[in-house]
Amino acid sequence: MARTARVADIPSLGTLNPAAGNLSRQVMRALREAVRKGELRAGDALPSTRLLAAALDVSRGTVLGAYEQLIAEGFLIAKPGSGTCVAPTLPGPHRAESPRSSKPRGASEREGHPGLPEPAASFARIAAEFRPLAPVPFAVSVPMDLTAPADVWRKLGNKVRAKGPGAPAGYGDPLGARPLREAIAHYVRMSRSVRCEPGQVIVTSGTQQGLYLASQVLLAPHDQVWAENPAYRGVTAVLESTGHRETMVRVPVDAEGIDVEAGMAMGPHARAAFVTPSHQYPLGMPMSMARRSALLEWARTRHAWIVEDDYDSELRYQGYPFPSLQGLEPERVVYLGTFSKILFPSLRLGYAIVPDALVDAFCGARVLMDRHPPNADQYVLAAFLAEGHLERHVRRVRNVYAAYRAKLIETLGALLPDDLAWVEPGDQGMHLVLWLAPKIDDRFVAAAAVSAGVSVRAVSPMFSPGTARPGLVLGFGGFGHEQMVEAARRLSAVIVDAAKRYLR
Amino acid sequence: MARTARVADIPSLGTLNPAAGNLSRQVMRALREAVRKGELRAGDALPSTRLLAAALDVSRGTVLGAYEQLIAEGFLIAKPGSGTCVAPTLPGPHRAESPRSSKPRGASEREGHPGLPEPAASFARIAAEFRPLAPVPFAVSVPMDLTAPADVWRKLGNKVRAKGPGAPAGYGDPLGARPLREAIAHYVRMSRSVRCEPGQVIVTSGTQQGLYLASQVLLAPHDQVWAENPAYRGVTAVLESTGHRETMVRVPVDAEGIDVEAGMAMGPHARAAFVTPSHQYPLGMPMSMARRSALLEWARTRHAWIVEDDYDSELRYQGYPFPSLQGLEPERVVYLGTFSKILFPSLRLGYAIVPDALVDAFCGARVLMDRHPPNADQYVLAAFLAEGHLERHVRRVRNVYAAYRAKLIETLGALLPDDLAWVEPGDQGMHLVLWLAPKIDDRFVAAAAVSAGVSVRAVSPMFSPGTARPGLVLGFGGFGHEQMVEAARRLSAVIVDAAKRYLR
Repeated sequence: MARTARVADIPSLGTLNPAAGNLSRQVMRALREAVRKGELRAGDALPSTRLLAAALDVSRGTVLGAYEQLIAEGFLIAKPGSGTCVAPTLPGPHRAESPRSSKPRGASEREGHPGLPEPAASFARIAAEFRPLAPVPFAVSVPMDLTAPADVWRKLGNKVRAKGPGAPAGYGDPLGARPLREAIAHYVRMSRSVRCEPGQVIVTSGTQQGLYLASQVLLAPHDQVWAENPAYRGVTAVLESTGHRETMVRVPVDAEGIDVEAGMAMGPHARAAFVTPSHQYPLGMPMSMARRSALLEWARTRHAWIVEDDYDSELRYQGYPFPSLQGLEPERVVYLGTFSKILFPSLRLGYAIVPDALVDAFCGARVLMDRHPPNADQYVLAAFLAEGHLERHVRRVRNVYAAYRAKLIETLGALLPDDLAWVEPGDQGMHLVLWLAPKIDDRFVAAAAVSAGVSVRAVSPMFSPGTARPGLVLGFGGFGHEQMVEAARRLSAVIVDAAKRYLR
Repeated sequence: MARTARVADIPSLGTLNPAAGNLSRQVMRALREAVRKGELRAGDALPSTRLLAAALDVSRGTVLGAYEQLIAEGFLIAKPGSGTCVAPTLPGPHRAESPRSSKPRGASEREGHPGLPEPAASFARIAAEFRPLAPVPFAVSVPMDLTAPADVWRKLGNKVRAKGPGAPAGYGDPLGARPLREAIAHYVRMSRSVRCEPGQVIVTSGTQQGLYLASQVLLAPHDQVWAENPAYRGVTAVLESTGHRETMVRVPVDAEGIDVEAGMAMGPHARAAFVTPSHQYPLGMPMSMARRSALLEWARTRHAWIVEDDYDSELRYQGYPFPSLQGLEPERVVYLGTFSKILFPSLRLGYAIVPDALVDAFCGARVLMDRHPPNADQYVLAAFLAEGHLERHVRRVRNVYAAYRAKLIETLGALLPDDLAWVEPGDQGMHLVLWLAPKIDDRFVAAAAVSAGVSVRAVSPMFSPGTARPGLVLGFGGFGHEQMVEAARRLSAVIVDAAKRYLR
């Protein structure tokens, strides 16, 4: 069994120099060095942050920051109950500042890579921001036994692949396999009042690719575009990286959804609006009918486009959903959906429903990006839809998630005082937002939570600068009640701890 | 059985008006109208182009052009031996100018879509250019029984998916599944002298995605970039669509590969060069050692980047390959490979090997594009590589393709006079270029070939304007000897026919 390392076992930590600045970074470096020298071995448990901070005479936050960054890089892992340890298999040398010195390199590299391309730094920041969370509560979208369609999917897949259409083949249609496009058209017509023919369906690798394609096709460089405030970072980051960092207008969202009048005042020349009408991300409420009408009226009169991101409309727990924007104005709306969330994220299959006039353009953009979606799973998914498995799956999952959601809200409510953290009502999806008292730094809480073996995302980066409110996105799919309750306990402790720091 | 329509059966053709211009387009419109009205039904054979041209008193080229465009759109299909007929199942309404009127639409749409986004037109042109060829000779990369690993792949897949790692899961690593990255690193080290660790391997959806990512990460807007002349359209189209239409420098290629001195003269400020050193696309020769050294020296001194597109290095039939550029200068080269060509295109799995300093940037760009590759097939492919199936497959396929290649060259040589069409030697890949006498329009030949049931791509669009030579790319994978010989006969007839038109 792996040992628990004592501070005295790690001489590399003796190299810390408070005068050299950024102690957290120095601690990280020393820990990497310790692994390289064999002072720490794969699997070893580390001293607690409290103990190490005391031994090094630095603040606990310094040590926490170092641990958290190394966990995010996969160098350390947080083990619920037993603290932090060195990852059993260390990641390759690609993570920022990984232990390069373990293999000899040329001097040029150690001194930094000359002439790094201009876009590299911002893409690297995006990589860090989107690094997958550890598969512990409350990471979003981890399928579990109860909600993963694993057996049905596997058996159906074996059948489809044996019969032929799912077998190895040549280049396919960039728009996707016809049977899947037909099944999707039928599905969105029935479930979301989307008005479309199969020819308008483009099979994507998920909503993210749909957003990317839409930004490429709908916007010329320097075109003004509306994004919600707050919004999914996957939207705003795409718009930034496709040349709209300066021309993206962050339109405020209130209880009815995007404020169309504010949008017209702030971004009168916008060519497109990216919105989440059925379940605003991250806030959770649907866009009101009045706002839907106003937004469509704006698009019609300005000849602008609406990108309707309907990422989790299957998971509505009560009441009757508003009709999709697409169904109200098919010629002006690009409708995006995905099977990743409701089935399993590793599938990477979603869809865009686009106006006839734009199908060829989306097709061209897609061809340049990756030619076409892989064939085999498209045919499996087509059969899965055609045979009614998705419907059954949605019904089952919806009940499971509704129960999880209620339990999680109850648990958090019992653990945390209302003035410190609270959940706003909402009745859809597989995540909820736990708002925090205004002075608490949600990024600090999220980082500290990682060390406590809990995965959460901070809400503040989803707001435009200066408008942020602190909060945490908690996914409640994929984990059992017990596991969630235990994680909620640990998260509450982290929040109470943070409150002491920020609210004293 | 479907009938053969006589001209008299198609009253819609009576609407042609020579004064209204573009007769080819009028014929297309009339044929679509005829289908809508039921004058032509799905599966009906059309009159021959000769017959229809005579009946309408227009040139045969006019009718040929209309048929060819409708075939490209999937509205008609070319049946080898039995002429052209209406597609058995007509495509959805998305193809340009498809029979809209069959479903009632709002007036606004019939009058054209107001305010189509600026980028839409050029993406739509790309869609037309990349429309998949019919799976008949000489479409590139259609796997056939003899060369597709279908059975091994399927059985291995069922095993891997049953055991777990290929089963439905949550979000994966944007860089790809670790076992596959390890297997790829091992494979390129052994087979291509690429110097890398698994941490530098990024699993892509194929070379096309690798090219896209490289263009995003390596080039800021308006950065100068070298592309070969001629080059794969998948490269130049990506560079155009990512904002480098004006700053792309087309560097001439001679018998030794890209002319580095010419590049330095034409594009002295280039930040990157996109090259195909092991098998220039489409010309076929490898880059000489002297040119490799010169290119690397340029990259080193200018701190520029090289994108090494090694799309089919497995298929070398004789001699010893040059080492990869990446192996000579790992810190300056992004190496791209794919399994789509050697295994099967519908798989959509390839890889980019990138310098340590750029891994995070590629990861960020990839996350925004489509999050990560689908999981299941990554694990199947990892097992396929680890169990030695790929090696065995390559050995077998290499022999099959070498024989096909020799047979095709022999057949074409016997059918076509040397001054009309010829193949230049080369010893790699699954395509060859049949050069045509200078005055022949290769795009016309390619279009006419489609009507004759033969799929070829014209070479001239791969050159920069004013430098084109006519030729045809012929894929020789995926078809049996007999089928290829028959297609070569029909293609030769088309070429001889075109020669009469262009060389008289």
